[in-house]
Amino acid sequence: MSVTAAKGFTAAGIAAGIKENGNPDLALVVNNGPRLAAAGVFTSNRVKAAPVLWSEQVLKGGEVSAVVLNSGGANACTGPQGFQDTHATAEKAADVLGLNAAQVAVCSTGLIGVLLPMDKLLPGIGTAAAQLTEHGGEKAAIAIKTTDTVHKTSVVTKDGWSVGGMAKGAGMLAPGLATMLVVITTDADLDSAVLDRALRDATRVTFDRVDSDGCMSTNDTVLLLASGASGITPGEGEFAEAVRAVCDDLGQQLIRDAEGASKDIKVEVINAATEADAVEVGRSIARNNLLKCAIHGEDPNWGRVLSAIGTTAAAFEPDRLNVAINGVWVCKGGGVGEDRELVDMRFREVHIVADLAAGDETATIWTNDLTADYVHENSAYSS
Amino acid sequence: MSVTAAKGFTAAGIAAGIKENGNPDLALVVNNGPRLAAAGVFTSNRVKAAPVLWSEQVLKGGEVSAVVLNSGGANACTGPQGFQDTHATAEKAADVLGLNAAQVAVCSTGLIGVLLPMDKLLPGIGTAAAQLTEHGGEKAAIAIKTTDTVHKTSVVTKDGWSVGGMAKGAGMLAPGLATMLVVITTDADLDSAVLDRALRDATRVTFDRVDSDGCMSTNDTVLLLASGASGITPGEGEFAEAVRAVCDDLGQQLIRDAEGASKDIKVEVINAATEADAVEVGRSIARNNLLKCAIHGEDPNWGRVLSAIGTTAAAFEPDRLNVAINGVWVCKGGGVGEDRELVDMRFREVHIVADLAAGDETATIWTNDLTADYVHENSAYSS
Repeated sequence: MSVTAAKGFTAAGIAAGIKENGNPDLALVVNNGPRLAAAGVFTSNRVKAAPVLWSEQVLKGGEVSAVVLNSGGANACTGPQGFQDTHATAEKAADVLGLNAAQVAVCSTGLIGVLLPMDKLLPGIGTAAAQLTEHGGEKAAIAIKTTDTVHKTSVVTKDGWSVGGMAKGAGMLAPGLATMLVVITTDADLDSAVLDRALRDATRVTFDRVDSDGCMSTNDTVLLLASGASGITPGEGEFAEAVRAVCDDLGQQLIRDAEGASKDIKVEVINAATEADAVEVGRSIARNNLLKCAIHGEDPNWGRVLSAIGTTAAAFEPDRLNVAINGVWVCKGGGVGEDRELVDMRFREVHIVADLAAGDETATIWTNDLTADYVHENSAYSS
Repeated sequence: MSVTAAKGFTAAGIAAGIKENGNPDLALVVNNGPRLAAAGVFTSNRVKAAPVLWSEQVLKGGEVSAVVLNSGGANACTGPQGFQDTHATAEKAADVLGLNAAQVAVCSTGLIGVLLPMDKLLPGIGTAAAQLTEHGGEKAAIAIKTTDTVHKTSVVTKDGWSVGGMAKGAGMLAPGLATMLVVITTDADLDSAVLDRALRDATRVTFDRVDSDGCMSTNDTVLLLASGASGITPGEGEFAEAVRAVCDDLGQQLIRDAEGASKDIKVEVINAATEADAVEVGRSIARNNLLKCAIHGEDPNWGRVLSAIGTTAAAFEPDRLNVAINGVWVCKGGGVGEDRELVDMRFREVHIVADLAAGDETATIWTNDLTADYVHENSAYSS
């Protein structure tokens, strides 16, 4: 049910002709209220796409009445014309829907450095608006796919209110790290400050820790919209937990659909002096190409884990490091541990535990292996 | 002529049986003086192999009489036993050659986390010592190969003195960044302080800027030994230039032999506010897996260059960035520039220029593309 699981929202997904192959490429999500509260988290890349620059401004107002999303083009590195195109997109949606353009967020995804075919996109908004329904969440989720093999949705239903969402992303996988567009909706009756706290708390430990290939996108956007249509105001803790559950579920779906991956790798760093240390070490391990190749080859190459830990500034002593792969402590005290032949790596899920023996903080980063298919998909993507 | 081009050095390379396939795996380089001056640069990885910990101590004395190098095993993450093995290696060489073990450097390369077969290595030192000659540099260079497809040597001959060297490395490519062992020798009559300055100046802009896959090794070692046998003391500037030329040549050979690579990529960052900015941006571009895949696919995907620049803290304005690929300015002012169809990417050499328009500093990083062959070599390496 995606973004239309929560009451007060309608959505649509259509093929506007932005993609040359005729696949769906334009989605519309509308908040019919009574509230229009919203929060957003955006890529920390300093080269930001035009829709990110626009939507950041929209979100400063704390209210979003509609989101226009397109696949088939990122509208990044497109200069003043790109920004004008985003502005025109918001104006067109506002015009068709009778809204204020300053409350219309815009998200784009696809190739960088190409102008969007506005002659197709603008009429498409009218077509999509005519198809808005309370059951359109699925179609919207489909229309934002790029190299995604499946569309991604998640819903948490609570007592009289719910949180639901959709995501696209399959590479450059966090606001910070994924080519990721996410829209989450709720009918809980909450203001934008509560939404903002819940969203930042959730993304910090979910999307921000999904790191498929270490490449940060220019377009990452995660939006949370509240209609208040349920008339219920849940406790902030309970609400934050539901948002986090949806973000966690969508993040896991991104990892499972990462371009060319054959393994989903959970990198758990334990006994770190600080959470920041744990995250730094986890990312260093998750980004080590040699280790990612070894995992692809079902080789429990713990030496590459230690080599990756050694490049960080985290607190640790080399001769106190322990590493487990799929439950087998193959490295103990910085040296050879249990027999590596005991490690079973036949399955898609791989679990690496890095014990820094330096404190009691922990963090988990999710990543993928590095495969010939990843190389193929990403060398052929724009050709 | 490798490490024996300079007068005063002998070398040997033999098959000691450390490698199961019977290939050469043990090299010996001996400085017969009259001087024993030396300098060294080591990996900045905090997880250092036993031979690195040992050789760092040896180099503190400023004198090296011999270097024992083995392939077939890195002796990293091998605990107290690993360190004892390195110590025993130096003692054996000292014993056989009539030297002081505290002046014998040791270098190892190969798999991490496996103890060396000392029952083969120690007798091998005796065998190698018996074969030491003034023409042994080539054999020594061959004996330190791991996944290298060719052995790497370089010589600069000046008026009455010379600098020559050998290198191994084909992945995890800088002292800091390459699985790289390098021994450089000279018969110039210079003390260890001059050697140290020349070596650091050279590695900073050569090996440290070779970044094949962003993975920093536990074993990287670059040694510079001076015999003084020419009786000539060149000017420090002239000497530094010769050392730099050898390091530059060997570094380029490493890049050309990088595991599975099909393209050698020169990333030149110009008009940066500081050299540190230029290096940071160059590394970020050189480590972007998506860009490296695009280059492999001969796709001049400048959007991925901008995306990589955007992840850095360097001084720049997104809408003033310019990018040229093989001479075509495909990105101007942060947006679309000259026609990307004009870019000819058929050849192995690819030249990316990133213009930050923020100052007048520059730096060049050398890297490779990311290929299915890289994945294959590194997923199968230890199996």
